[in-house]
Amino acid sequence: MSSSIYSGGKKPGRSSNFAHNRLLADHPPVPYIPLYTFLSYEAIFAPETHLSVLVVGSLALDSIETPFGAVKDAVGGSATYIAAAASYFVSPVRVVGVVGGDFPKSGLSFLEGRNVDLEGLEVVADGKTFRWSGRYHYDLNERDTLLTELNVFERFDPKIPDKYRRSRVVCLGNIDPVLQRRVLDQIENPRFIVCDTMNYWIEKKNAELKETLKSINALILNDSEARLLSHEPNLIKAGRVIRRMGPGVVIIKKGEHGALLLTEQMVFSAPAYPMENIFDPTGAGDSFAGGFVGWLARTDDMSEENLKRAVIYGSTLASFSVEKFGVEGLADLTYLQIQDRFRQFRELSRFDED
Amino acid sequence: MSSSIYSGGKKPGRSSNFAHNRLLADHPPVPYIPLYTFLSYEAIFAPETHLSVLVVGSLALDSIETPFGAVKDAVGGSATYIAAAASYFVSPVRVVGVVGGDFPKSGLSFLEGRNVDLEGLEVVADGKTFRWSGRYHYDLNERDTLLTELNVFERFDPKIPDKYRRSRVVCLGNIDPVLQRRVLDQIENPRFIVCDTMNYWIEKKNAELKETLKSINALILNDSEARLLSHEPNLIKAGRVIRRMGPGVVIIKKGEHGALLLTEQMVFSAPAYPMENIFDPTGAGDSFAGGFVGWLARTDDMSEENLKRAVIYGSTLASFSVEKFGVEGLADLTYLQIQDRFRQFRELSRFDED
Repeated sequence: MSSSIYSGGKKPGRSSNFAHNRLLADHPPVPYIPLYTFLSYEAIFAPETHLSVLVVGSLALDSIETPFGAVKDAVGGSATYIAAAASYFVSPVRVVGVVGGDFPKSGLSFLEGRNVDLEGLEVVADGKTFRWSGRYHYDLNERDTLLTELNVFERFDPKIPDKYRRSRVVCLGNIDPVLQRRVLDQIENPRFIVCDTMNYWIEKKNAELKETLKSINALILNDSEARLLSHEPNLIKAGRVIRRMGPGVVIIKKGEHGALLLTEQMVFSAPAYPMENIFDPTGAGDSFAGGFVGWLARTDDMSEENLKRAVIYGSTLASFSVEKFGVEGLADLTYLQIQDRFRQFRELSRFDED
Repeated sequence: MSSSIYSGGKKPGRSSNFAHNRLLADHPPVPYIPLYTFLSYEAIFAPETHLSVLVVGSLALDSIETPFGAVKDAVGGSATYIAAAASYFVSPVRVVGVVGGDFPKSGLSFLEGRNVDLEGLEVVADGKTFRWSGRYHYDLNERDTLLTELNVFERFDPKIPDKYRRSRVVCLGNIDPVLQRRVLDQIENPRFIVCDTMNYWIEKKNAELKETLKSINALILNDSEARLLSHEPNLIKAGRVIRRMGPGVVIIKKGEHGALLLTEQMVFSAPAYPMENIFDPTGAGDSFAGGFVGWLARTDDMSEENLKRAVIYGSTLASFSVEKFGVEGLADLTYLQIQDRFRQFRELSRFDED
């Protein structure tokens, strides 16, 4: 059964560009015309109609077991999922990360096929890619980490290429908060910074994480992480405590129970898509982050109403991601599929007075 | 600290009728005029503009400890909470249950003050009332049961008074499924039967519970109970499995994560009210059931759209219930408070396309 589901379907690398082009059809990127040679055109005019997105995070080879199958050395990592999900809303998405010489060509062509800019991807030819291996329990809410091999990721020191420095939306995947800050130090005048984190950093690098939180706009974390970071079991209170640490926007993911969005004035409760067939929860959180930042960058609207929509688009991309193994669920979506599921989320939680 | 919070506020028995009258203002009960003496007027004309509600369940004396205080021998029990919550929507609510001679007069006058009909309440003068004692953990999601004394409840055999037999909406509190069926055997032509259950009956009286499920319209249970009953970790699948056992409507309560409503065609995800100050979770599920049946009985509309509203009214009453100790949270609500919180639920989950 191993890898049969994964290799049986379409390979990520064969992803078609069709859906992508349709999604961007009503916001065609303005062609690059180098009027000024002493300064990049981009630096002056920001030619994209939407905001540029920079993603910094891991690229990994994941070996995953779920009750429904298994896959070995599948292309994964936070940056991969975030970039793939965001690529349905904006183009190009820029990635900064590191892989070893063993990272498969299919992984790169999957991202390139989704119009992801890989100029910031460092390839350590004689190094090994970050590897993660995990096994999900029957109810898919719990997993055992079987193996974590940092490999080239251990010495990852994100260097932001010049042309990435004016990225307006930045999505910091779940990496060392010290590295997250190092990324931010290299960015000029960002419009919106979204950050992910995890238990490990909350426990091991608490002070560093809190330093990072002072410089970001939105933190995405799950319910147990929110409780751990805030020392507050009540999630609404936890969200408020975390907001006081810096981020004006806090998003608490609750898996099968949806997500909470907290701003100064608002609490928004987003439902979970009623998934009956989750094949592989890996990357759900990163797909959420990718859909969230993608929508915000596409619309250049950080209002509370639009943040709500971004949470639903995040949930939408996460729901597609878990329907297949690895990144396969993000490989061949169409605009119609995404819009249709967004509307299903609306239907799911809509009720009228009398 | 013991009992200070409870006795400090208004006692349940002192509840005013004002709110109740306002809520029923637009549906005043038609006065009873005995035109036919050989048959009750009610039997022929069903004179209430809304449907009559019968509640069968426990009346108890609860001793509760939470991180915020403690209360001893407070009036509680499933029938008490259900009837009190439903009484904000319909009048009268009829109760069948049993108490001992030690049940305080204030408990009876609390229910009577809410216009609850207690003709079906058996008082065993020389018996002791059902007692429950529990301690909630810091995060309020877990509790230890310290004591369960069935007392007069041990030999409870619900006898439905003649005038209750044509009740149109029946709410079966969390009692032995054999007793639940015995209630249904005594009811003539009910319009809608709502049933609650719990882990204990799912495990100890599984076959009997499944027999009861064949005769009801809606089952209300929490997420762990749904998983236990269906042997299915995925809650959407669990709901579908339970629907196939009989009830066309399944409602899965998820505590701080809201509730799911499943019918044949629909899944509805109701948000949880963002409670920052939960004083006492006891009775939340029963208050939910009471608000749910109360709204359905008031509107006589079992459509999917109205079932959604009923779930929100259930959640509304549950949210009020947990804000104070015991039934105190259901003592003095106004129509405006209930409507206002209903609208807050809407605001909480509402989002627009583009």
